[in-house]
Amino acid sequence: MDFQKIGAAFVKQYYDLFDQKDTRSQTSNMYHPTESCLTFEGQQFQGSGAIVEKHANMPFANLYRVITTSDFQPIPGGVLIQVLGQLRTDSENDKIMGFSQTFLVRDVDNNFFILNDIFRLLIHNV
Amino acid sequence: MDFQKIGAAFVKQYYDLFDQKDTRSQTSNMYHPTESCLTFEGQQFQGSGAIVEKHANMPFANLYRVITTSDFQPIPGGVLIQVLGQLRTDSENDKIMGFSQTFLVRDVDNNFFILNDIFRLLIHNV
Repeated sequence: MDFQKIGAAFVKQYYDLFDQKDTRSQTSNMYHPTESCLTFEGQQFQGSGAIVEKHANMPFANLYRVITTSDFQPIPGGVLIQVLGQLRTDSENDKIMGFSQTFLVRDVDNNFFILNDIFRLLIHNV
Repeated sequence: MDFQKIGAAFVKQYYDLFDQKDTRSQTSNMYHPTESCLTFEGQQFQGSGAIVEKHANMPFANLYRVITTSDFQPIPGGVLIQVLGQLRTDSENDKIMGFSQTFLVRDVDNNFFILNDIFRLLIHNV
């Protein structure tokens, strides 16, 4: 398994879908119905249903995002990913903010799922 | 398993050892001899020997570190951790820098090891 290639393809596919309001809900297929965990700014959500509902309620439409670094490491049956970058929402006057996001993407019954997703804005870190 | 408690105890123990030059090499016991991977600013190291050698060659003695957030998620046999914070080395005139570090800590033969460690300074993200 080429973990770098899988990881890079995952990151592109995920943010391409997530950053457009029209396609954001399609990321639901990338989360496992029961096993996936999202920690978003400290709030915890479990299962693709709860995770996608959280995403749907976010107070912005499209996101403009620049990835600074994506680091990948192999794990048994999957890839660990740490992404750093900057984003801005489409709200007027919104500031550019740094973010850090960790994904653990793993094979479950021959399908890759985001089993773990931890997201934090870097607003308090600089 | 209380993943929050294990994760928080791990983070404290790890940085307490790492941040003092005199105790830094003791983190070698927390990495697996062959399976652990470190990605440090994009450079990859495998096994506790190579990882601790990298740490020993870092160009500073003690580190002053503040943790802003530590997020924990359970994984089979372990904990996924994303840490954000700020650090400064003891070099004169050194700047305070943000960092993001992801750990995957997992049980191997009844011992917890850092199997995955990804570190990035946030210097290009803000």
